[in-house]
Amino acid sequence: MQTTWILLLVSLGVSTLAGAEKGLEFPRYDGKDRVLDINEKNYRKALKKYDMLCLFYHTPLPTAKELQKQLQMAELVLEVREDKTRVNVWCLHEEGSVYVFKEDRVIEFDGLLAADTLVEFLLDLLEDPVEIIDNALELRAFDRMEEDIKLIGFFKSRDSEHYLAFQEAAEQFQPFINFFATFEKSVAKELTLKMNEVDFYEPFMEEPVTIPDKPHSEEELVAFISEHRRPTLRKLRAEDMFETWEDDLNGIHIVAFAEEEDPDGFEFLEILKEVARDNTHNPDLSIVWIDPDNFPLLIPYWEKTFKVDLFRPQIGVVNVTDADSVWLEIPDDDELPSPEELENWIEDVLSGTVNTEDDDDDDDEDDDDDDDDDE
Amino acid sequence: MQTTWILLLVSLGVSTLAGAEKGLEFPRYDGKDRVLDINEKNYRKALKKYDMLCLFYHTPLPTAKELQKQLQMAELVLEVREDKTRVNVWCLHEEGSVYVFKEDRVIEFDGLLAADTLVEFLLDLLEDPVEIIDNALELRAFDRMEEDIKLIGFFKSRDSEHYLAFQEAAEQFQPFINFFATFEKSVAKELTLKMNEVDFYEPFMEEPVTIPDKPHSEEELVAFISEHRRPTLRKLRAEDMFETWEDDLNGIHIVAFAEEEDPDGFEFLEILKEVARDNTHNPDLSIVWIDPDNFPLLIPYWEKTFKVDLFRPQIGVVNVTDADSVWLEIPDDDELPSPEELENWIEDVLSGTVNTEDDDDDDDEDDDDDDDDDE
Repeated sequence: MQTTWILLLVSLGVSTLAGAEKGLEFPRYDGKDRVLDINEKNYRKALKKYDMLCLFYHTPLPTAKELQKQLQMAELVLEVREDKTRVNVWCLHEEGSVYVFKEDRVIEFDGLLAADTLVEFLLDLLEDPVEIIDNALELRAFDRMEEDIKLIGFFKSRDSEHYLAFQEAAEQFQPFINFFATFEKSVAKELTLKMNEVDFYEPFMEEPVTIPDKPHSEEELVAFISEHRRPTLRKLRAEDMFETWEDDLNGIHIVAFAEEEDPDGFEFLEILKEVARDNTHNPDLSIVWIDPDNFPLLIPYWEKTFKVDLFRPQIGVVNVTDADSVWLEIPDDDELPSPEELENWIEDVLSGTVNTEDDDDDDDEDDDDDDDDDE
Repeated sequence: MQTTWILLLVSLGVSTLAGAEKGLEFPRYDGKDRVLDINEKNYRKALKKYDMLCLFYHTPLPTAKELQKQLQMAELVLEVREDKTRVNVWCLHEEGSVYVFKEDRVIEFDGLLAADTLVEFLLDLLEDPVEIIDNALELRAFDRMEEDIKLIGFFKSRDSEHYLAFQEAAEQFQPFINFFATFEKSVAKELTLKMNEVDFYEPFMEEPVTIPDKPHSEEELVAFISEHRRPTLRKLRAEDMFETWEDDLNGIHIVAFAEEEDPDGFEFLEILKEVARDNTHNPDLSIVWIDPDNFPLLIPYWEKTFKVDLFRPQIGVVNVTDADSVWLEIPDDDELPSPEELENWIEDVLSGTVNTEDDDDDDDEDDDDDDDDDE
C-alpha cells in the first residue's frame, strides 16, 4: 500500500499547473477511485486498525460527484501522511455528514465540505491536544488568539495527575477548543495562575474566568466547559459553520458582517466586542460574526438573501427557519452606531420589538421578488 | 440575462448540503455550462461592454474538467453580482493562466486556481483602490496589517490633484498592494505625515520609508514602488503564490515554514522578523514565509519533497529548478535558533557555503528514494 501512495503523489506532482516552478506543485484529484465501502465486518477491523477513521455519509445529490472528488482529494492527502500519522479516511454513502472516529471518541465534522477545510480539521485532530507555553514570546502567541475559546492551566509537570486530567478533558474538545498549559512559574505569574489553576477565556473577552475549586477532575473540566461553551460573540468558522448555525437562540441569530481587514469593518468589530464584553453575562445573547473575506463564494448568496451590501459592515437578525431577516440601518460608514446605539438595538431584538415577522407581506427567503431590483 | 442569473441562484440554493438550516446554503456548481469561447469579434465588444473581464487560458490537463468547474463556480458567483458591479467572467482555453482586463489594465492572476481564491481576487479588484483612514480606531486597523506592502498618504481632500495621482498609482497595483489615505490632521499627526507626504511600509517592518521629494506624480509613485517591491520577508499568499515563487533570487528561495497560530511557530516567526528588520537593506535577501495552515493540501507534498516535519518550524534553501533543498538543523522546539544563529546561517546561504548541490548524490526532487523511509 505504501508504495501505491508514493506513486500516487508522484503522479500528482506531474498533473500540475503549467508554468509553476518546482516546489509548489499543487496536488489535484487524479481520477483514481479510492472510496472504500464499509460493511459490518471491515468496520470493526478498521476501527481497531487505525488511530483515526473518518466516515463520510451523504445522499446522492446532483453535486455528489463533486463532493466525492473533494473528499477523495482529502483522503489522498491524508493517505500520503499515513506512514507518519497512521491516519486513514474511509467513505460510506449516506446522510450528508462526516464523522471522525479517534480512539474512543466520535467527532462530527459539521463544517464546509471542502478538501482543505476537512484536511485542516483532521490535521488539527493529530496535533497534541494541549499546547505548552514555555516563555514570554509563546505567551504573546497565546494572548493574540482571541477568536476561539481557550483554556490555560498551570501544573507542576507533565506527570502531574491534574495535568493528565486537563489533557483528557482537552481531548474531548479537540479541535474546537484550544487548551494550553505551562509548567513555568514565570509564565504562570504573568497570568496570575496558581498551581493547578485553570483559566477559561471566552472569545473576544479580555478577562478570563478562573474555573472554581481547583484541582479539577476531567469530568469537572468537561462540565464547566460544556456549560460555558456558547459565547456572547463568536466568529463563523468554515470547520464548524453548520454546527454554529444550528446552535441558534429561539430560532434566530444575531448576525454581524464585518471585514476585519477593512478599516470600517475593523472599527465596527471593535464596537461589537465592546458590546459583547458589557453583556457577557446575558445567556440570551450570542452574536455570530461573519467575516465575508472567509466565505467569498457565499457573498452573493448572502447579499441576495439578506438584501445587504457586504462591502460595508452590517448587523441584523436572521430567522434560521426561513432566512427572513431585518437589518440595522447604518446610514454611512463614517457614522457607525455607537456601542450604546448597538446595545439598544440588541435589546429591541431580544425583547422582540425588532423582529423578522413584521414585514412578512413580502417573502424574503427565496428571491421571487428580485426581478424588480435587477430590472 | 438578469433573470437567468436569478433562477440560477435559486437553483443553487436548492442544491445545498443536507442538514443545513436556512441562511448558509453554500452555492455549488449546478452542471450548467457557462464557458463562452471568445473570438476576435466578440473579444473587442466584450472589452468595451464590461468594466472587468477575466480570461482563463489553460492546456487540456487531465484535471481540466475540474479546473473548469472551479472557474465556472467563480463565474457563476460573479455573474450573480453583475447587476451591481458589472463584472463578468469569460473563459478561453489555452496556456494555464488567468488574466483580468479592467479598464486599461491587464492583471495576471498567478495564484491558486480555486474558486474562492479567484473570486476573492476579483472582488478585491472591485473595491476602492484607496482606503480612507478617518479616525484613531481605523488607524489601529491600518497598524495591524503587517503582512502586505502598504502605503499611506496625507492629502488636503479627495479633490487634491496629489490625492488623484496617488489614486491612479493605487490602481496600478490593486489588489496586490494596499493604499491608504487620510484627510484628517489628527491621523496624519499620529503617523508624523506632512501634507502630500506618502509613507511606504515594507511587510513586517516597524518603520516606514517616506517617499522622497513630495508631492509625487503617479509615475514617481509607480517607479518608487516598483523599485522597492520585493520585500526582505514576505508571506506566501494563495492569490499570487506562483508569481512569488517565480520571483526567486539566483534560482533559489530561502523558505521558512511557521504556523502563526502555534506558539513555537509564532516564536520562530518573531525571530525571523527580527532578522528581516536587521537586514532590510540587503537586496540579495528575500525570505518566503509559508504558514502551512494556509495550504493544508500542500503539506504532505512539501513534507515529501523537502523531507521536513511541518508540524514544527523549519527554514531552508530551495532550488526552484529541481526543488532540491537544504534545511537548518533545529534540534528541538524548545531551543529555536537565536536571531544571531539564524543570521549566520542566512549569510552562509547567501555566500554559497550552505547550498543545495553538495548532497546531490541522492536526488531530491522526485520521490524515488522514499520507499526506504516508508518501509
